[in-house]
Amino acid sequence: MRITFCCTGTKAQPWLEGLQAALPGAVVDLWTAGAASADYAVVWAPPQQFFDEQTGLKGIFNIGAGVDALMKLRLPPGVPVVRLDDAGMSVQMAEYVCHAVIRHFREFDGYEADVNAGKWSYRKPRSRADFSVGIMGMGVLGERVAQALQAFELPLRGWSRSPKSLPGVQCFAGEAQFHDFLAATRILVCLLPLTPDTRDIMNRDTLSRLQPDAYVINVARGAHLVDEDLIALIDSGHLAGATLDVFRTEPLPAQHPFWKHPKITVTPHTSARTLREESIVQIAGKIVALERGEPIAGIVNPARGY
Amino acid sequence: MRITFCCTGTKAQPWLEGLQAALPGAVVDLWTAGAASADYAVVWAPPQQFFDEQTGLKGIFNIGAGVDALMKLRLPPGVPVVRLDDAGMSVQMAEYVCHAVIRHFREFDGYEADVNAGKWSYRKPRSRADFSVGIMGMGVLGERVAQALQAFELPLRGWSRSPKSLPGVQCFAGEAQFHDFLAATRILVCLLPLTPDTRDIMNRDTLSRLQPDAYVINVARGAHLVDEDLIALIDSGHLAGATLDVFRTEPLPAQHPFWKHPKITVTPHTSARTLREESIVQIAGKIVALERGEPIAGIVNPARGY
Repeated sequence: MRITFCCTGTKAQPWLEGLQAALPGAVVDLWTAGAASADYAVVWAPPQQFFDEQTGLKGIFNIGAGVDALMKLRLPPGVPVVRLDDAGMSVQMAEYVCHAVIRHFREFDGYEADVNAGKWSYRKPRSRADFSVGIMGMGVLGERVAQALQAFELPLRGWSRSPKSLPGVQCFAGEAQFHDFLAATRILVCLLPLTPDTRDIMNRDTLSRLQPDAYVINVARGAHLVDEDLIALIDSGHLAGATLDVFRTEPLPAQHPFWKHPKITVTPHTSARTLREESIVQIAGKIVALERGEPIAGIVNPARGY
Repeated sequence: MRITFCCTGTKAQPWLEGLQAALPGAVVDLWTAGAASADYAVVWAPPQQFFDEQTGLKGIFNIGAGVDALMKLRLPPGVPVVRLDDAGMSVQMAEYVCHAVIRHFREFDGYEADVNAGKWSYRKPRSRADFSVGIMGMGVLGERVAQALQAFELPLRGWSRSPKSLPGVQCFAGEAQFHDFLAATRILVCLLPLTPDTRDIMNRDTLSRLQPDAYVINVARGAHLVDEDLIALIDSGHLAGATLDVFRTEPLPAQHPFWKHPKITVTPHTSARTLREESIVQIAGKIVALERGEPIAGIVNPARGY
């Protein structure tokens, strides 16, 4: 069995060694143009040429939760595309979102500005009932974020394509319930997959439907958000601000207004990083299962795009 | 039945109105020097004169979780001193501590400095196993903080006077296990009551026993911490920094080095504020119970001091 590795922007050597150690019977190598086809591919944003040449693949493993970069390519028909189930990402996402939610709800930025100015000043505690958190995207990551947020007793709402039921979360589904979901949301968290249906989903119309003084947290993909609509609604006072981890172009271009906006917190796509060791264990386990003809989790539905 | 209110630094009118509404049959008034004794007292840091004059009290209600200010006074013997059980404070404490723990563990201050300098830079994810959180004080607040932290999969340790058992928390008790508790703690959270036994408990000796590069979060009382020992250990590089919400003197004096220390985050005693509505419901309920001769929770043991 041959495994080929083709991951843009990723240091290959530790992955090659890790995959080799996990699958000692396999030949694991770095893809080069013109190489013979392998049995399995481990990829992140490969070029189209990769799939044009690798015609004997039995499985394609994406080393991330989002497969939107892959879905733009012509993929070999009938070959399962597999995304990482979790591999240590959901706990990171729960941390990132809880931190951003608490920081906003408890006004820690305001306290910090006061302290930097040498001021000891109280703020009236805000009412929990006024700060409902609405999560768009209730997959593995969204559910985990909702579960972690339960500890803080903020009203929780979730919106997903297909109906879900989660204890302690008011669930909304589909286009028909989207506006109702938005209307009572004070802190919006985007954890959607990026598909043609969800591109630009946070725009002037939808963001205007949120509660006055709402806050936006985007930890999904930059293309979910129309940048200039967010800025316009913050500057007009309808939105309180945003925490953004993902951007249309990454790294965020030097001249982009998000860098210096006083009400926008920027982080460099660090909310949930792929953890190599956990990912290798998961991918190796799934290759073994596929070889045995056993079912595996995480196979992407090309029609849905995730 | 008469209820007298004597709370330093608290706007009295909303409390008087709230207590009156909750106990319509009672006379509720603001204490003045020389007034006849009431049946119940609602207090925060009252003067000694208050207890010298109020000789007919059947119960003393402290509008906070910590009763250290009361325990310094000569109190009428045999009269129960009652502290707030929770009254919305434990969820606030869970928020504050989770925020500080995640902010430190995920290096959000470092990312913020990078972003302010226009830098898009990754940091290698830290290993969860290296960041055990050790909570000193496993009462209502400590347990709630531990419960909220479970979501983030950091190793949890707890230390208390008497032995406890909590799922997912490695528990230590008493003087004998204190050094073992400290030795493997990377993030120390102080939630102890302030008593003669716990005063100055975070000092050069004890803080030196923490893991190298440990972090300190104090949300209990300023007198738990020896300020100059903390600063010396941060400046020598043994400790990574601290988040402090409580201080020996509050407001923190203008010249205190904590204000400007680059590795210390200061907040103005805001981690868990007494919420008036919840507290009034709780106090009124306990007064009714005492009048009926029923047992109530939250009675302070004067020998322990909490």
